[in-house]
Amino acid sequence: MQNQTILLASRPTGTPTAENFRFETNEVPALTEGQVLLKTLYVSVDPYMRGRMNEGKSYIPPFELNQPIAGGAVAEVIDSNLYSLPVGALVTGNLPWQQYIVSEGQGLQIISPDEAPASYYLGLLGMPGLTAYFGLLDICEPKPGETVVVSGAAGAVGLIVGQIAKIKGARVIGTAGSDEKVAYLKELGFDEAINYKTANIPEALAAAAPHGVDCYFDNVGGPITDAVYDLLNNHARIALCGQISSYNDAEAPMGPRPEGKLLKTSAKLQGFIVSNYYQRWPEGVKQLTKWYKEGKLRAEETVTEGFDQIPAAFLGLFKGENTGKAIVKVA
Amino acid sequence: MQNQTILLASRPTGTPTAENFRFETNEVPALTEGQVLLKTLYVSVDPYMRGRMNEGKSYIPPFELNQPIAGGAVAEVIDSNLYSLPVGALVTGNLPWQQYIVSEGQGLQIISPDEAPASYYLGLLGMPGLTAYFGLLDICEPKPGETVVVSGAAGAVGLIVGQIAKIKGARVIGTAGSDEKVAYLKELGFDEAINYKTANIPEALAAAAPHGVDCYFDNVGGPITDAVYDLLNNHARIALCGQISSYNDAEAPMGPRPEGKLLKTSAKLQGFIVSNYYQRWPEGVKQLTKWYKEGKLRAEETVTEGFDQIPAAFLGLFKGENTGKAIVKVA
Repeated sequence: MQNQTILLASRPTGTPTAENFRFETNEVPALTEGQVLLKTLYVSVDPYMRGRMNEGKSYIPPFELNQPIAGGAVAEVIDSNLYSLPVGALVTGNLPWQQYIVSEGQGLQIISPDEAPASYYLGLLGMPGLTAYFGLLDICEPKPGETVVVSGAAGAVGLIVGQIAKIKGARVIGTAGSDEKVAYLKELGFDEAINYKTANIPEALAAAAPHGVDCYFDNVGGPITDAVYDLLNNHARIALCGQISSYNDAEAPMGPRPEGKLLKTSAKLQGFIVSNYYQRWPEGVKQLTKWYKEGKLRAEETVTEGFDQIPAAFLGLFKGENTGKAIVKVA
Repeated sequence: MQNQTILLASRPTGTPTAENFRFETNEVPALTEGQVLLKTLYVSVDPYMRGRMNEGKSYIPPFELNQPIAGGAVAEVIDSNLYSLPVGALVTGNLPWQQYIVSEGQGLQIISPDEAPASYYLGLLGMPGLTAYFGLLDICEPKPGETVVVSGAAGAVGLIVGQIAKIKGARVIGTAGSDEKVAYLKELGFDEAINYKTANIPEALAAAAPHGVDCYFDNVGGPITDAVYDLLNNHARIALCGQISSYNDAEAPMGPRPEGKLLKTSAKLQGFIVSNYYQRWPEGVKQLTKWYKEGKLRAEETVTEGFDQIPAAFLGLFKGENTGKAIVKVA
């Protein structure tokens, strides 16, 4: 049986392109003792993966040249030499971009398609949902009536942050990159939504946050962040989750130094990655699932079809093509 | 009896000068019911006061034009209509820059000159000491063997931060602006000290912190901070206490955006002012006094003499003229 894999062909300088990826075709090997064969169903493309395309130290090691790209995926067990992973089971895990995967089962979690559609375990009930849950509730700690700003609000994480902040009784302002996304955020219950591509960002944020900003969940960085820092209330809390505006910059981006503003307001800025909360994941999944079943949290996906479209879906993240979770349906 | 007062004559643009201050001479008024007459003994000049010379919102209101400058001071009660403040008592409080002060006693605290020299209540046992104590222990939480960097290490706060970090078993690196200050820091027990005016800052810091930086207590900002951010270990803690390098800037200073580096390391950056810890001040004073009496904490002062020298002593802060606490001995 033929099996396609997507490898890192070269490291991007600046914005990645299709040329940074290479497809390779091999035969699926025969299983040996203690192995399962997985068929990839859904592949998750996420902004953080851009960092792994670079060399150099970060919170996870870089992808290696001429080795498979890997990320979140949902797969089905189609052959098994492992009692714990029977044929037909659906699993999630960090998996190579590959149609068929031989695995010894490490790091795989069985998911229940009765609770929610399988792809939701890559979004609302997976890494992006948990990122939103822990970053907002553990770092920002929004209180009823407080003002929460979310940048990248129409992205996989931002949409969930805004909805949880509403559940917690906060006033929620989102920024996004199109009028369609702004309309969708309002439909979802955001109090205010700003198209950062067409608005005067400082004026629009000041108008949307007449009582200042208590919590900021930042996925983007850059000029939106600069404007939020000018509106911070005393003891504001900032969860630093992503900086998609600068992931493709070759040089460290320059901007107004934020320290003076953070000092004046006794603000807290906390960088984090979801794996910091690894031991609390079951709590997060349980609560997100409960809110989803109660109709309090909605999942939104932008689904691309076809294994060969994975690089294009990934590159689309940096053009703002997705609303909610960007998923590739592989099979 | 003649009484001199120093008023804010004009707001500085950029670095303040002697022209921003005006001396006024009046008669000391007669006391009425419930008042005491204070004779100012020591006046504290502190970098944060620069912010109060500007208009605009900050954590404390600006000084008003043609009104007295006010700050920390030690004074003696020389006449009293208040049982609680008898003649001869020494007090500290936020007091006008004035030789003789009529007060109703609000905000004054009696100090004990048997515990320590009176001026120490403006430094080691006062606001700077408490700033060091709470900022370092509550925000940075240094653990034995961790690496702590202090910028402005030879200043009133920095000297105490470094000494407390040593008490807690950390490896301590300080930055300061002269070879004399660097030598003094080493004498005090700092493991490494860097003259930021002559060193290549990134190289010197990297050499001094071969295992990275776990805690950063920042009094300065700017290029020193940029270099520290490049050395942060995972879960680093940054206490943002001052930004003296930019207090005199008319425009917001520009620099490399720090968010990417804080995100990669899950670092925490917390702005604070000592009044956030108001309710815990007795705890802080008690511990600082204990360490001082045990010989574990040394106080260093740069004392200028004469009421008319107060503005010059204040302006000297921005030229790095002081080692340790800058004090003016008035009487």
